[in-house]
Amino acid sequence: MTQTTPQSESQWLAPDELEVARQRVPILYVDAIPVRVDTQGMVTSVGLLLRATGDGRITRSVVSGRVLYHERVRSALLRHLEKDLGPLALPRIPASPQPFTIAEYFPTPGVTLYHDPRQHAVSLAYVVPVEGDCEPQQDALELNWFSPIEARQESVLAEMGGGQGSLLLQGLAHVGV
Amino acid sequence: MTQTTPQSESQWLAPDELEVARQRVPILYVDAIPVRVDTQGMVTSVGLLLRATGDGRITRSVVSGRVLYHERVRSALLRHLEKDLGPLALPRIPASPQPFTIAEYFPTPGVTLYHDPRQHAVSLAYVVPVEGDCEPQQDALELNWFSPIEARQESVLAEMGGGQGSLLLQGLAHVGV
Amino acid sequence: MTQTTPQSESQWLAPDELEVARQRVPILYVDAIPVRVDTQGMVTSVGLLLRATGDGRITRSVVSGRVLYHERVRSALLRHLEKDLGPLALPRIPASPQPFTIAEYFPTPGVTLYHDPRQHAVSLAYVVPVEGDCEPQQDALELNWFSPIEARQESVLAEMGGGQGSLLLQGLAHVGV
Amino acid sequence: MTQTTPQSESQWLAPDELEVARQRVPILYVDAIPVRVDTQGMVTSVGLLLRATGDGRITRSVVSGRVLYHERVRSALLRHLEKDLGPLALPRIPASPQPFTIAEYFPTPGVTLYHDPRQHAVSLAYVVPVEGDCEPQQDALELNWFSPIEARQESVLAEMGGGQGSLLLQGLAHVGV
Repeated sequence: MTQTTPQSESQWLAPDELEVARQRVPILYVDAIPVRVDTQGMVTSVGLLLRATGDGRITRSVVSGRVLYHERVRSALLRHLEKDLGPLALPRIPASPQPFTIAEYFPTPGVTLYHDPRQHAVSLAYVVPVEGDCEPQQDALELNWFSPIEARQESVLAEMGGGQGSLLLQGLAHVGV
Repeated sequence: MTQTTPQSESQWLAPDELEVARQRVPILYVDAIPVRVDTQGMVTSVGLLLRATGDGRITRSVVSGRVLYHERVRSALLRHLEKDLGPLALPRIPASPQPFTIAEYFPTPGVTLYHDPRQHAVSLAYVVPVEGDCEPQQDALELNWFSPIEARQESVLAEMGGGQGSLLLQGLAHVGV
Repeated sequence: MTQTTPQSESQWLAPDELEVARQRVPILYVDAIPVRVDTQGMVTSVGLLLRATGDGRITRSVVSGRVLYHERVRSALLRHLEKDLGPLALPRIPASPQPFTIAEYFPTPGVTLYHDPRQHAVSLAYVVPVEGDCEPQQDALELNWFSPIEARQESVLAEMGGGQGSLLLQGLAHVGV
Repeated sequence: MTQTTPQSESQWLAPDELEVARQRVPILYVDAIPVRVDTQGMVTSVGLLLRATGDGRITRSVVSGRVLYHERVRSALLRHLEKDLGPLALPRIPASPQPFTIAEYFPTPGVTLYHDPRQHAVSLAYVVPVEGDCEPQQDALELNWFSPIEARQESVLAEMGGGQGSLLLQGLAHVGV
């Protein structure tokens, strides 16, 4: 199969065009839960990004981002993981495109477990082992690694916005920890 | 959770707006392979729609359609199944939102197995048992039921456009027949 | 494919032979979480069996049982669901044999989330919608239906033995509630 | 969780005991399809083992073997991959225990797609990326790598015994190639 070359984000959609699209069609996303695994594939820790919101709150999140026009889902996964965890993260993108779940973020709270005031986004969710060195990039303050037990704690889940605490629990359930 | 009420298709997106969106963002679809199952859940037959294309060719297809703004994926599945198979089809929408695969239809042929000249569409694919009476609706000429063995035949697959033959094979593999 | 006819349980394995096998090889099980769904496939309630243990405690459990020699997994699922919920339960056995997880019950506590003092059992776990009338059979005192939110409560999970509380949470995560 | 230490194969089950068990209960297996993937997780090649059968025929197969008493499924996967591909193969055992399918090998041909004259075996099937150097071990003559397209050819599938050609097709369908 030939290689795809999605146009760069600035080229393919002007900010106001994106605003319009966000009011009209569901926007396709990918969510990736970065994990460390042992030689048997068992998840030993889960990586969460720490960010400051505009209003001064602290939130934790998984790696998340849009799929661009003419971009493959697996390319989008790799791009967002490298963007958030750095170029040396060495994510192991799953061989199968089957997500462990889909997260439906609605602009109206309460329709599903997920909420995004900006848009109706539908996200394909994956658990992705990373093997290299991870460094928080751009707007992330920190990247913290939690044991599966720590990651399930109320105090951690409460810091995750938009329903991503539910997504994290679903991902942990999927890997059996 | 509160009920969602997506606006009707004519309201939410004017045709020219849809054309614009189709050139800018991946459009979210659902694909559903309708099947008959026995009491043990074993697939006994597969339903394919027969349509005439504008240029006089005959094509077979699975049930397929867009997810609307503010519409849940499972609502879109039910809506398209009832639209194509009739109101008495009684589809059993899967309890889990996990699709068996995602089909990435690119406007450029050859990027993936799937092709759609109109747009970049990403489809969540499900196998859906139907228990009621199915009648082809609207633009479909016929609905034909094939045994799993018949459905795998080259002559059938060759009549399916846009890579849906591959999707059908993947769905049959998923149900183990 | 031809129909299988597993020998009846009493015929195929004498109790002492079963005891021996249980000390030597992993025993194959199926676990089924019975659910009610709406027309969109959304899980509205979860069925749990209430039993009295030999020592007078009350435990809740999902439908669970062995796969017999020369029995198909989907036949075992149907058999155990009808045995525990009655012949009118009308379970909708999934079309795909892909379980949402496997539960590894070890005779030694703490190896995995699951524990069975009698044996090393590996269970294929499914969420199974039931559409008919369910009546607790045999040794079950009651069959109770819980909303997905109720089923996640600590008080319910605490009554489930052998790690089945974890299995229930994994099943609920799989169906996205 | 504590580490499991399954007894060595010779200890836990004498050959005649295994013969007896094989006539009485389904035997739990794992099947692993070894693959090479690119940085986006796309499968670029599939590894098949070439063996000579007792009667002088040549067969191809995936990695396959029993789960031992008190052994975790992911431990069995790692053990069989290292046994067949060598200690430097570096298999990436999946983080999730969810198999892409289960293969039910019946001693009677025609019950399912799978057949094993020795026993009723139920196998949990996984696609496993391997990153290191693979060398055929023990009784395997060769390990050959095929592109996904080559692996689907009739000439290759025809050399696979016991229905493993079907399993290979299901695995390739699962990874979308």
